[in-house]
Amino acid sequence: MRKNVLVIGAGGVGQVVVHKCAQNNKLLGDIHIASRTIDKCRRIVASVREKNALQANGVLVAHALDAMDVAATSQLIRTTGAQIVINVGSSFLNMSVLSACIETGAAYIDTAIHEDPVKICETPPWYANYEWKRRAECERAGVTAILGAGFDPGVVNAYAKLASDRYFDRIDSIDIVDINAGNHGRFFATNFDPEINFREFTGQVWSWQNGRWTANRMFEVSREWQLPVVGLQKAYLTGHDEVHSLSQILGVPTVRFWMGFSDHYINVFTVLKNLGLLSEQPLRTAEGQEVVPLKVVKAALPDPASLAPTYAGKTCIGVLVQGRQRGSEQEVFVYNVADHKQAFEEVGSQGISYTAGVPAAAAAMLIASGEWDVRKMVNVEELAPQPFLGLLDRLGLPTRILHHGIDSSLQGQCDATDTSRAASVP
Amino acid sequence: MRKNVLVIGAGGVGQVVVHKCAQNNKLLGDIHIASRTIDKCRRIVASVREKNALQANGVLVAHALDAMDVAATSQLIRTTGAQIVINVGSSFLNMSVLSACIETGAAYIDTAIHEDPVKICETPPWYANYEWKRRAECERAGVTAILGAGFDPGVVNAYAKLASDRYFDRIDSIDIVDINAGNHGRFFATNFDPEINFREFTGQVWSWQNGRWTANRMFEVSREWQLPVVGLQKAYLTGHDEVHSLSQILGVPTVRFWMGFSDHYINVFTVLKNLGLLSEQPLRTAEGQEVVPLKVVKAALPDPASLAPTYAGKTCIGVLVQGRQRGSEQEVFVYNVADHKQAFEEVGSQGISYTAGVPAAAAAMLIASGEWDVRKMVNVEELAPQPFLGLLDRLGLPTRILHHGIDSSLQGQCDATDTSRAASVP
Repeated sequence: MRKNVLVIGAGGVGQVVVHKCAQNNKLLGDIHIASRTIDKCRRIVASVREKNALQANGVLVAHALDAMDVAATSQLIRTTGAQIVINVGSSFLNMSVLSACIETGAAYIDTAIHEDPVKICETPPWYANYEWKRRAECERAGVTAILGAGFDPGVVNAYAKLASDRYFDRIDSIDIVDINAGNHGRFFATNFDPEINFREFTGQVWSWQNGRWTANRMFEVSREWQLPVVGLQKAYLTGHDEVHSLSQILGVPTVRFWMGFSDHYINVFTVLKNLGLLSEQPLRTAEGQEVVPLKVVKAALPDPASLAPTYAGKTCIGVLVQGRQRGSEQEVFVYNVADHKQAFEEVGSQGISYTAGVPAAAAAMLIASGEWDVRKMVNVEELAPQPFLGLLDRLGLPTRILHHGIDSSLQGQCDATDTSRAASVP
Repeated sequence: MRKNVLVIGAGGVGQVVVHKCAQNNKLLGDIHIASRTIDKCRRIVASVREKNALQANGVLVAHALDAMDVAATSQLIRTTGAQIVINVGSSFLNMSVLSACIETGAAYIDTAIHEDPVKICETPPWYANYEWKRRAECERAGVTAILGAGFDPGVVNAYAKLASDRYFDRIDSIDIVDINAGNHGRFFATNFDPEINFREFTGQVWSWQNGRWTANRMFEVSREWQLPVVGLQKAYLTGHDEVHSLSQILGVPTVRFWMGFSDHYINVFTVLKNLGLLSEQPLRTAEGQEVVPLKVVKAALPDPASLAPTYAGKTCIGVLVQGRQRGSEQEVFVYNVADHKQAFEEVGSQGISYTAGVPAAAAAMLIASGEWDVRKMVNVEELAPQPFLGLLDRLGLPTRILHHGIDSSLQGQCDATDTSRAASVP
């Protein structure tokens, strides 16, 4: 059942994926990592060797690859014998990497929807714009393609499916809450590429409410959440991939995504946006130089990877599901709490990269084991959640369930320590 | 007594100076305007013609000039027959333009201290760093050089001298307060070149207190001022040229400069500064382009000249002098209130440029009339204040004096309307 893996993308998430694949290479086989900049891949390989992370002696190789080039990507899949491709590069690469997988028969995993670089924000229906148009093609080729297999989307989709299976006859609403209560100690920084980070928030905010798309401005709608471990947190309605797939696949009338932002983040963002400094349109300086302001802001901000060594605190990402079971109202909150410092010590990345990368590696392991090798294109909520969440428990992202005021682990054992810190979720 | 004038610098202040010189060309003779970009000079010439601003038919000509080039500047002074040079170009030009004046015998006027382009902020003693080193040279050549003849420095120095002459045996402190209570209606803009504007505030703040230089951080020390017309305003301790000259020439132990900033201005400034976007040090984008962030911010911000048409509201700039006369404590506030809209209607610039440009033109008129043709280098407080302030009354910048709760004009007539709006100055 060993399957060689090719990881595309050598940022913070790529680093986590490679570490986790290396820790499980008895199942996964050879590990390859490719990016436009081979040096970034080499640094990841070196960090795996430094931490002695390989479970068993095995192949671990860095490659230079322009993954927009389908032929080159197919070629690399063939020469490496990769049977699973984990695409954690830029969101612009999804369609070309998927093409290479269909061409070669390799399984495909990604963690975010495809984006067109010339658009600031993709408008709904997100998956239907690109990925789902190729469902039939994947099925004909017998190619397993697991879309959005990071934390959110990814683990939260499995949380929703688990809740649906266990606690509900009918779901009225799903609210995904993503809080980073960590502190990097800098004046301001984004947790991943500022160019991608800001793009998420410069357009309109889309949610699925009462069976249709609803548009809001960014930072227009907020809600306070009383959450386990991280406490009271303010989060803002934000557009996110899984709002689309969960509403369609689970048939839920209201799906919303809430992301936590500090007042400070919002202030800096608002100043930069209103001054035009987040624009992708070039401007001309008095000296006649053509410059894209967003690229200058990106260059001025700390490199997200540089935050990891001093990052402290925790993340809390969870799903609040509300509905009915056997006539009575039900509410359950399924969540994970991750720790920045622990993540850095284990794999050299901060918690945000950790929560995104570990699930992608877990998905690869489930394809290798056959449990998720479904030979068609699926979103995570179409797959059995138990093997995935059980594996994540072991890989460092344990699932907690808060139901009727009881905080328990996935296996249903109530954990006294955590219960004392459990909180009521509105 | 007619003396030809050469104006160097074609920004908002240059526009005001040329308009005011044109309105008084019976005294001043030919008017020439020069800048690196001749088109900016031509636009000013066209605006003078459009408003029929010339008092009498006469010469009004635009020139291209690199005023860092002393020989070229001397040559232009000679070919235009200019006997007075008004330097309202960048602060980097003072020394080269002064050299050209000394070489040709023309009188020299400027509105701000010389700055070295490679320094972020000049440190005290400001005038002694460059200008005052050339006092003997000016005296030998019999050249009139009037330093800092804008509003602040300039008119406020004359206010302090007037107060000293009229009301005090001994002055304990001079506080200059500069409030722009106008509104340009944009999210954020600077009232003059952002590059120069921000440079003023990125270094340390220097004041003269109890007979010595005192350093503070920008926005560290603030005071609320209850002012005529503009009401209650918060202003911050800021370094400014006239703190140096007034303390030395009038021998005052405490001289402070207070500039009004809105919380919004401070917030935007703080965000940009902390992100490194006000830096003059180039950085390199991910694409390998070398860019100076401050130049990008400048290009993204509105062109200060573009604010004038919609600028509304008033400025209030004044001098609070405290001390003793014949044994009793004395306090007087000498000030002017200017109106952005009126300034635009008259000369096509907003109030900030108007208050800086009109006094420079007035100084030229006083050199032409002989009253200020002192044939040496002076700061404004070394000259008789009455002819200057009397002329400014007629040119559109009337002086008001608030003493013992009575608000009166320069001639001492109490004005009932203004008294009702007068305010107590702390």
